[in-house]
Amino acid sequence: MSQPELADALERTASVFRADAHKARVTLRSDSALQAGFHSRARMRGHEISIDEPKGIGGTDLGASPVELVLAALGSCQEITYRAFATALGIPLVGVAVSVEGDIDFRGFFAIDETVRPGFGALRVTVNLTTSASQAQVDALVAAVNRHCPVLDMLSTPVPSHFETRVVAP
Amino acid sequence: MSQPELADALERTASVFRADAHKARVTLRSDSALQAGFHSRARMRGHEISIDEPKGIGGTDLGASPVELVLAALGSCQEITYRAFATALGIPLVGVAVSVEGDIDFRGFFAIDETVRPGFGALRVTVNLTTSASQAQVDALVAAVNRHCPVLDMLSTPVPSHFETRVVAP
Repeated sequence: MSQPELADALERTASVFRADAHKARVTLRSDSALQAGFHSRARMRGHEISIDEPKGIGGTDLGASPVELVLAALGSCQEITYRAFATALGIPLVGVAVSVEGDIDFRGFFAIDETVRPGFGALRVTVNLTTSASQAQVDALVAAVNRHCPVLDMLSTPVPSHFETRVVAP
Repeated sequence: MSQPELADALERTASVFRADAHKARVTLRSDSALQAGFHSRARMRGHEISIDEPKGIGGTDLGASPVELVLAALGSCQEITYRAFATALGIPLVGVAVSVEGDIDFRGFFAIDETVRPGFGALRVTVNLTTSASQAQVDALVAAVNRHCPVLDMLSTPVPSHFETRVVAP
């Protein structure tokens, strides 16, 4: 899809959502099940992935770990949001590649120190833009992206979650 | 890996971290790059996945979307944490499967209404346990898991993030 085609597609979608807010509200879903050990298979619509832990901490390394998937989700969400907002704002963008590093202290997960959080304590995001845009355009783009990136939003502002547990006998 | 073998592996790992906190602190990483349109390829150690948006919003659907990956990361992280804590606490657990639903309002991402958050406004997690454990054991397990699940932690408590932008000319 060329930049003008993508601009048209985004504008058509936005028009639908502007006209009818109900169409903008959707529910997405993942269904997963643990296999042997720490290996899990997850399905999101037609897409399936394997998730596992590295061998060093009891896994069989059949896929990335859940916390690594969070890093990939953030990096790719940044990239997609860069493409979308560069297109919408008419800012030239030839390419975008993102590296995300997360620092984790496994004493949290292993319940060795209850003052240590189990998730990443800090994230470092390096955004590599290939663009002829001016510095002012880049600054405007970075601000728009970090204001509207869905995964960054969820890692920055708590998401309310509701749990239900169902138990069946073996 | 049998339940006793997994218990041994987890205890060996925990012993290392208890003895030397430095060994518990690691940095994980994802490197991704946008391909055509909204398609991104991400690499985490040896594991590669394709990420994309559905066709309805300008993508080519070559993979799950970033926000769907967050749902799968949460579901699989819950499952792995259930297995680990059931093993550590000596609670029988034959199987665990998790479904996660997330409600999103795309008026946030599309900047149609700046009061709407771009990420999920709410998550519903259904945990299906196959176990002969007592209700008291299940309650203890649920509490331990939700206290130590790394992905749940990151969706419940903000993760500090630092951004660096690098610009290269085309």
